[in-house]
Amino acid sequence: MSKSEINIGLIGFGTIGAGVVEIFNKNQDILSKKCGKPVHLRKVADLDITTDRGVKIDESILTTDVNDVLENDDIDIVIELVGGYEPAKTFVLKAMENGKHVVSANKALIAKHWEELISTADENNVRFSFEASVGGGIPVLQPLNECLSANRFEAIYGIMNGTANYILTKMSEEGLKFEDVLKEAQDKGYAEADPTFDIEGHDTAQKLIVLTKLGFGEYVPQEKFHVEGITKITPEDIEFAKNELDYVIKLLGIAKQTNDGLEIRVHPTFIKKDHLLASVNDVFNAIYLIGDFVGPVMLYGQGAGRMATASAVVGDCLDIIFNESKRISYGPVESQVKSMKNIDDVVSKYYISLTTVDEPGVLQTITGTLNKNGISIESITQKTNIDSESVPIIIVTHETEEKNIQQAIQKINELKEVEGESKLIRILE
Amino acid sequence: MSKSEINIGLIGFGTIGAGVVEIFNKNQDILSKKCGKPVHLRKVADLDITTDRGVKIDESILTTDVNDVLENDDIDIVIELVGGYEPAKTFVLKAMENGKHVVSANKALIAKHWEELISTADENNVRFSFEASVGGGIPVLQPLNECLSANRFEAIYGIMNGTANYILTKMSEEGLKFEDVLKEAQDKGYAEADPTFDIEGHDTAQKLIVLTKLGFGEYVPQEKFHVEGITKITPEDIEFAKNELDYVIKLLGIAKQTNDGLEIRVHPTFIKKDHLLASVNDVFNAIYLIGDFVGPVMLYGQGAGRMATASAVVGDCLDIIFNESKRISYGPVESQVKSMKNIDDVVSKYYISLTTVDEPGVLQTITGTLNKNGISIESITQKTNIDSESVPIIIVTHETEEKNIQQAIQKINELKEVEGESKLIRILE
Repeated sequence: MSKSEINIGLIGFGTIGAGVVEIFNKNQDILSKKCGKPVHLRKVADLDITTDRGVKIDESILTTDVNDVLENDDIDIVIELVGGYEPAKTFVLKAMENGKHVVSANKALIAKHWEELISTADENNVRFSFEASVGGGIPVLQPLNECLSANRFEAIYGIMNGTANYILTKMSEEGLKFEDVLKEAQDKGYAEADPTFDIEGHDTAQKLIVLTKLGFGEYVPQEKFHVEGITKITPEDIEFAKNELDYVIKLLGIAKQTNDGLEIRVHPTFIKKDHLLASVNDVFNAIYLIGDFVGPVMLYGQGAGRMATASAVVGDCLDIIFNESKRISYGPVESQVKSMKNIDDVVSKYYISLTTVDEPGVLQTITGTLNKNGISIESITQKTNIDSESVPIIIVTHETEEKNIQQAIQKINELKEVEGESKLIRILE
Repeated sequence: MSKSEINIGLIGFGTIGAGVVEIFNKNQDILSKKCGKPVHLRKVADLDITTDRGVKIDESILTTDVNDVLENDDIDIVIELVGGYEPAKTFVLKAMENGKHVVSANKALIAKHWEELISTADENNVRFSFEASVGGGIPVLQPLNECLSANRFEAIYGIMNGTANYILTKMSEEGLKFEDVLKEAQDKGYAEADPTFDIEGHDTAQKLIVLTKLGFGEYVPQEKFHVEGITKITPEDIEFAKNELDYVIKLLGIAKQTNDGLEIRVHPTFIKKDHLLASVNDVFNAIYLIGDFVGPVMLYGQGAGRMATASAVVGDCLDIIFNESKRISYGPVESQVKSMKNIDDVVSKYYISLTTVDEPGVLQTITGTLNKNGISIESITQKTNIDSESVPIIIVTHETEEKNIQQAIQKINELKEVEGESKLIRILE
């Protein structure tokens, strides 16, 4: 930027907002040194400016009037940390229309209103940066979109939700039930009071939408792909896969380029123990991608939290100061993806867990049903249960199309010998 | 860049140069789309333009005269892939003086002539980018220097040499001797005919110099820090540490900010099995860093090779096209680091392996020597060896200063009961 000093305005003085204030308090010297000029946090707007956020702040910069930021001619960059759709969207668009660059961590807003946000930034010749929206503090979007931009990507996988990863890690390490770990995570503050968004995969889906746009140039709205959470996973699934099959379970967002179009999905996934993603535990996140020249790359760190997310937000501000005129094409702004593979056509190996009554011939009936649907079996394990007349059966299939497995599962569930619903977990090879 | 098309000149048509040509052959459409304008590889200079490099190339762009690149007014960006100090340095400086931006993968050159290269780029108002010089294809320098620039770094560790990591991985997995794995690696093309540079830690040291400058703002020439290779590591060290102590061995470059100044060193290091770096195997590299806000971040991928390194080189070209005017301060250009911790003052846990004669009281003499030097012992293991009169002893110490351990080891080596030289491996906690 050609100005002799840079002024930043912040809207939303919540958890991450307080982290941003803390960076300006603690690392002001680094910021100014790197940029070669002073960088100030000039205004902080929030409806509540009286609650103590646990950070030192010059009270004269606090305001309840958002226009002290949006209409302030001194402000060069606006940080939006309001979250959600409205009024965040109105604030972001107004900032851009007023010629201000915008930094946001708002994945929901970006995943839903991609087209309008990018076009408005372009029309007003300002920058719109959102590194913090995917992977929290982990450098993901800039590496993907710039350092690795000579590559055609084959696949982008990611562990993108810290709450879900924490729950699955604890279930795996301590053999605990989903409900028990969720409660513990809520007590520790690792999970929200209403955890739906995290554990049902919606948060991962929003991040995957942003990654897919940047990695493959296609915008795919969430209603267009399969999103499945982790609530049905049991300690028995995890235990069996770990000990018998050398698999670890992770909630993955997956985007893959195939000959039949883009393949996008979010679901719990078994991955091999020696895959580097299998070692990403607790609240940590990681994005694993494969480029045609660079090969596999993994970017790992804290995907959420006040300090890590604030690091990415302020990093974006510096990037704008370094490169005010940067223009990267995100590909055509279109709301419809051109060629996409339906979940029915996805090819995968599957783990199937079901319970049958203890009768002769049951196993044969089940394997027969799988064969009839063109599914070949890699392994089958029938557990004897002396205390019960129910028999748990675990099947691992070879690669097959999702529609085959769904048809077979429907038939199997209809068998009178099968108790309850069968469970399906996809396996990443 | 404001020009309507961009022309790139390449000097050095070797392995990585051929990879760059391949990217332009295969992904020209992506490059031009991302930049919003055509990007051409206009000239390729090498003394040998007749040997087949296994890539398709328009022969009219080949030249043996380097001035067809350096003095060519059409060329905007020069890629230097000559390697070594001269004539690479002359070419880079001349390109800058002629107003051309420069991209280089030449870690030796950058680590040694940092000051002159950066100043010349600044004076001539051109960019100098060298992402490929550290971590090959892995996005490291841009994330460190831009995305994470709001952080004060506490530490930067790295597995930065693929050859050394391949050898240590194979030794660990298959219980093989250093010499045998080295020979196998040479046969497979993973190690050079003269592997000194890789296995003695010099390559890691050069990369660490670049990382230290970017992460801590200090330039530390190689003669100022301890560099130790992996040639003395035995399968027995690895086996014992793995099975008895839960450690894995890696050749690490380590830069740490401490209260007593910067701490910089390169040496084989035991790290805990559950540290994410312990899962980085074969020829892969990873940089692990800790920032005061972002916390731990790891960047993983292929640290060498034609395709991956070319990905970083072309990524740098695109970064220059996106942001021709980007100016990031690398901190003061000084050839002397202000405050640095001597290796004698480094605090670490240590693994000591030695062999003694089988006599009563030997163990007591050795533990006595350690105690006298202020070293407290975490564990000691004496192995009985029925076929020999020699007794191997393994000691793990608590944290102590390097000078204490060096004094103690000298005393121990002088004991008449001790055979040969004791071996020391530092442990990263």
